[in-house]
Amino acid sequence: MMIVALAIKIANTEKGKTMKNYDIVIIGGSAAGATAATTARKHYPNKSILSIRDAKSVPIPCGIPYIYGTVGDAMKNLIPVDNMMGAANIDVLVDPVVKINQEFNLVLTAAGETVHYERLVIATGSHPVVLPIEGMSLPNVFPIRKDVNYLQTMQSELVKAKDIVVIGCGFIGAEMAEECKKSNPEKNVRVVEVLDHALQVAFDPEFSALADKALTDQGIELLMNQKVVKIVGVKKPESVLLESGVSLPADLVILGLGSVPNTDLAIGAGLKIGPAKGLCVNRYMQTSDSSIFACGDCADKVSFFDHKPSALRLASIATMEARIAGANLFALKRANDGVVGCFSTVLNKKAFAVAGLTATEANKKGYAIVVGEAESINRHPGLMPGGDLLKVKLVFEKGTGLLLGGQLYGALSAGELINAISAFVSNRMTADDLATFQAGTHPALTASPIAYQLVNAAENAVAKLSQ
Amino acid sequence: MMIVALAIKIANTEKGKTMKNYDIVIIGGSAAGATAATTARKHYPNKSILSIRDAKSVPIPCGIPYIYGTVGDAMKNLIPVDNMMGAANIDVLVDPVVKINQEFNLVLTAAGETVHYERLVIATGSHPVVLPIEGMSLPNVFPIRKDVNYLQTMQSELVKAKDIVVIGCGFIGAEMAEECKKSNPEKNVRVVEVLDHALQVAFDPEFSALADKALTDQGIELLMNQKVVKIVGVKKPESVLLESGVSLPADLVILGLGSVPNTDLAIGAGLKIGPAKGLCVNRYMQTSDSSIFACGDCADKVSFFDHKPSALRLASIATMEARIAGANLFALKRANDGVVGCFSTVLNKKAFAVAGLTATEANKKGYAIVVGEAESINRHPGLMPGGDLLKVKLVFEKGTGLLLGGQLYGALSAGELINAISAFVSNRMTADDLATFQAGTHPALTASPIAYQLVNAAENAVAKLSQ
Repeated sequence: MMIVALAIKIANTEKGKTMKNYDIVIIGGSAAGATAATTARKHYPNKSILSIRDAKSVPIPCGIPYIYGTVGDAMKNLIPVDNMMGAANIDVLVDPVVKINQEFNLVLTAAGETVHYERLVIATGSHPVVLPIEGMSLPNVFPIRKDVNYLQTMQSELVKAKDIVVIGCGFIGAEMAEECKKSNPEKNVRVVEVLDHALQVAFDPEFSALADKALTDQGIELLMNQKVVKIVGVKKPESVLLESGVSLPADLVILGLGSVPNTDLAIGAGLKIGPAKGLCVNRYMQTSDSSIFACGDCADKVSFFDHKPSALRLASIATMEARIAGANLFALKRANDGVVGCFSTVLNKKAFAVAGLTATEANKKGYAIVVGEAESINRHPGLMPGGDLLKVKLVFEKGTGLLLGGQLYGALSAGELINAISAFVSNRMTADDLATFQAGTHPALTASPIAYQLVNAAENAVAKLSQ
Repeated sequence: MMIVALAIKIANTEKGKTMKNYDIVIIGGSAAGATAATTARKHYPNKSILSIRDAKSVPIPCGIPYIYGTVGDAMKNLIPVDNMMGAANIDVLVDPVVKINQEFNLVLTAAGETVHYERLVIATGSHPVVLPIEGMSLPNVFPIRKDVNYLQTMQSELVKAKDIVVIGCGFIGAEMAEECKKSNPEKNVRVVEVLDHALQVAFDPEFSALADKALTDQGIELLMNQKVVKIVGVKKPESVLLESGVSLPADLVILGLGSVPNTDLAIGAGLKIGPAKGLCVNRYMQTSDSSIFACGDCADKVSFFDHKPSALRLASIATMEARIAGANLFALKRANDGVVGCFSTVLNKKAFAVAGLTATEANKKGYAIVVGEAESINRHPGLMPGGDLLKVKLVFEKGTGLLLGGQLYGALSAGELINAISAFVSNRMTADDLATFQAGTHPALTASPIAYQLVNAAENAVAKLSQ
C-alpha cells in the first residue's frame, strides 16, 4: 500500500489529475474486452470495474465484410458495448491507453488519466497483416482495420471503384470479394492468392475447391498460385503486378492476409511475449505478471491437440478466453485447454464450417488418421421445403478412434452442426461414440435418423478403423 | 446342429418348402430394422443377412404428418429400404413373420417360409394408442399407423373432411393439426388435450405456451384440460363429446396419443417383457435370449439419467439402438447408456427442440436444479438476412453443475443446435464447461460470440450455482 500511495502521488503530481482507482481494469472494448468485463461482473459482483477503449464505436469484427454488400453501413455493424457495460454496472473510459506500469499497477491514457488496478485484463486485439512491397501505403489500399471511420472511408471508395483486387483468399478475403461483387455486379472483382485454393488453410482440398466454385460462380475472378510483387500507382492504385508478370487493373485493393497480435502496450510494460508473437499466457490466461491477464487476438494460443503454438485468431476464441480471464481474476476457476478451432462462413449461399483438425493438418502434425464421410439432404423426405445438401467429413486418430475434427459443406444448418462437432472434439469422443450418438432429427430440420450425416460419417470410419 | 437339422426336417415336412438359412435375420424394415441391417453388414461383411418386413412400402415415420399439407402423397414419404438393402447386399423378404421359435432359431412367415438364424434382430416397432371409449372403431377415426395404404385412405378422407378433431396435442397431434389446416385453411381443426398445453410432456410450461400460440395463430382451436368421452356417429363420426359436456362437430378424428411397443411375436416366443411393456433388453440390446436382439420402439428403454424405465419412443433412438444391436451381433462392441431424449419439431415456422431433462422432469426425478437462460437473434448484427430469435433454456444439477438438459425455441438452426446440447448432456459436461465452450459463430449463421445463447445461458447458471 505504501507503493500504491507513492504511485498515486507520482501520478497526481505528473498529471495534475486525481488518480482513478479500480479493482479491475480492462483494456479493449471489442469481443474479448467486452466479454471479459461482463464475465468479471458476473463473477465479482462487488468489485469496481473500468473498461477502457480507444474509440467510441466498436465494429463487430466478423461482420465487417457484410457491411459492403448486405448491411450497408459500418454504423449498423456495432457491438452495443455501452449498453453491455451499462447493464453490468461497469465504468467506461474512451481514451487510448499509452502505458502500463506493472510495478505500480497503473495504466496511463493519452488524455493523461492515471488508473490504478488490482487486476488488469489486456485485450488489445490484433493488427491486419500488410505486405513488405511497394504501394502498400497508397490511399485506396485497405487492410481490414477494426475502426468505424476507416471502414466508412473504405465504403465510400468501394462505391466508386470499378476494378477491385483482393489480396488473400482466406475467410476475410473471400467474404470481402463476395460482398464487393454483391454490392454491384458490374464491378470487376479479382482475388489473388499464393495457395492453390480459397480457404485452403482452413479446409481440405475438396472443400476448398467447392469454395473456389462458390466464388467463381458469382463472377469473381480467382488468380491462384499467384504472388503480388507491387501495387502500381501514384496517388491511388492503378494496377496490381503479379510475380508471373500479369498486371491486374485496380483502383482499389483490399488485403485479407490475416492478423498479428497487437502487443505494443504489453511489450512496453515488459510482459513476456510467446512463440506465436502474442502475449505469453498460462492456461488461466495470466500473463508473466499474475495480476495481469490477457485474452483474445493479443494473447498467444496453443492447439488443443498437441499444445503447440496456434496461429488461430477468432472472435469466438477471444470470447472463450475472456470468459476464462474474467472468471479467474481473483480466484482461478477455469482453465484453457487450448484452441479446438471452430469456424464457419457462407459463400454463394452455401455454408463452409470446420472444427478441429482437417486431414491435411492432422497429417502435418503426424497423426495416423482415418476419414469418414457422408452426405444427404438436410430434410426427410428430401423434398420437404428448404432442403439442401449437407456434406460431412470427419477425421479420426487411427489408433484410438478419437475424433480430431470435422468439416461441413452445404446447408446453413451447418452453422450449428459444427458446434456439435466442436463438442465431440473437446470431449474426446470416438468414432464409436459418434456412431451411437443420440441425435435429434426432424423432417423439417434435418436428415432422417437413418441418413443423418454425422452419425453415418462416423460409422463409415468405424469400418476402416478396424481394418 | 442335430437340433437344427431336425428343425429343418420338421419345417420342410410341414410346409413342403426348402428352409432358408441365414447368419442374421432382421424382422422389421422401418428405422430400426433397416439401420440394424445396414449396420450388421458394415460390421460383418461376410455374413448372410435377411431382412423381413410386412409391407412393400415403408413410410418415413416422422414424415407422416407432412404428407397432408406439405409433401402431398404417402408414396413420396418412403424409406428407400430396397435400395438400402440392395446396396448392402442384404436379402429381402416381404412377408409378415407369424412366429419365432427360440429353441430351434427359426422364424416362420405368413406365406409359410421357414428361416433359420444364428442371430435374430426384432424391430417390430409400435402400435398407436387408442382410447377405451365408444366410437373408436368407426371409419374416419384414424390412429396414426405406419402403413402406406392406410395413410392414403386417411388422406382421401381428409380432403373431404370439414370438421377435424385431433385428440392429443403432443408432437404428432400438433403436427397433424397444423398440416390439416395447411392443406385447406377452410377446414375447422380442433385439438383436444387432457393436459394444460401443447407439447406439455416434452417441454417446460413457458415453451409449451409458445407451442399453444404457434397453433392458435394458425387458426387451430385448442381445447385444453379436456377429456374425450365418446365419438358419436353411426357410419362415421358426427361429433366428439367431451367430459365437460361440450360436443365438437367432427367428420374425421385423428388420434395423436402416443404408441405402445409391438411385442406380439416376442411374447409368443417367450421372450421377457420389461417394465415399460417393451422387450426386455440389456445394454448390448440382447433380449432374454442372447442370440436375439431387439431395437427401436418394440424394445424397453431406460433413462440416461437414472436408468429408470423411459417411455420415449423416437426414430432417432431406434436408429441409435439399431447401430448398437447391428454391431453387437457376433461380438459385443457397443453399449447403450440409456436414452437422453433429443427431439424437435416446427410449428408455425418456429422450431421447438429439447434434449435431456426439462426443469419439470428434473424436479419430478428429485434433482435440485439451477436454470440458465439466454435469447438473441441468430445472426450478427441482428439485421443480417434470415435472422430469427433463438431462445435457450438449460437445466443443471445444483450440486455438481452437470447439464441435465436444454430446450430451444425459435430459429430453425435449433434443429442442429439441439444436437450440440445432446452432445454436452451425453458427455456429462458442466455449466463451466459450457460457459467456456468453443463455439463457432458467423454473422450469416449464428449469434455473435458475445451474444451466443448457449454459452450465455450456461454463464447465467454459473452465477446461480455458486449462490
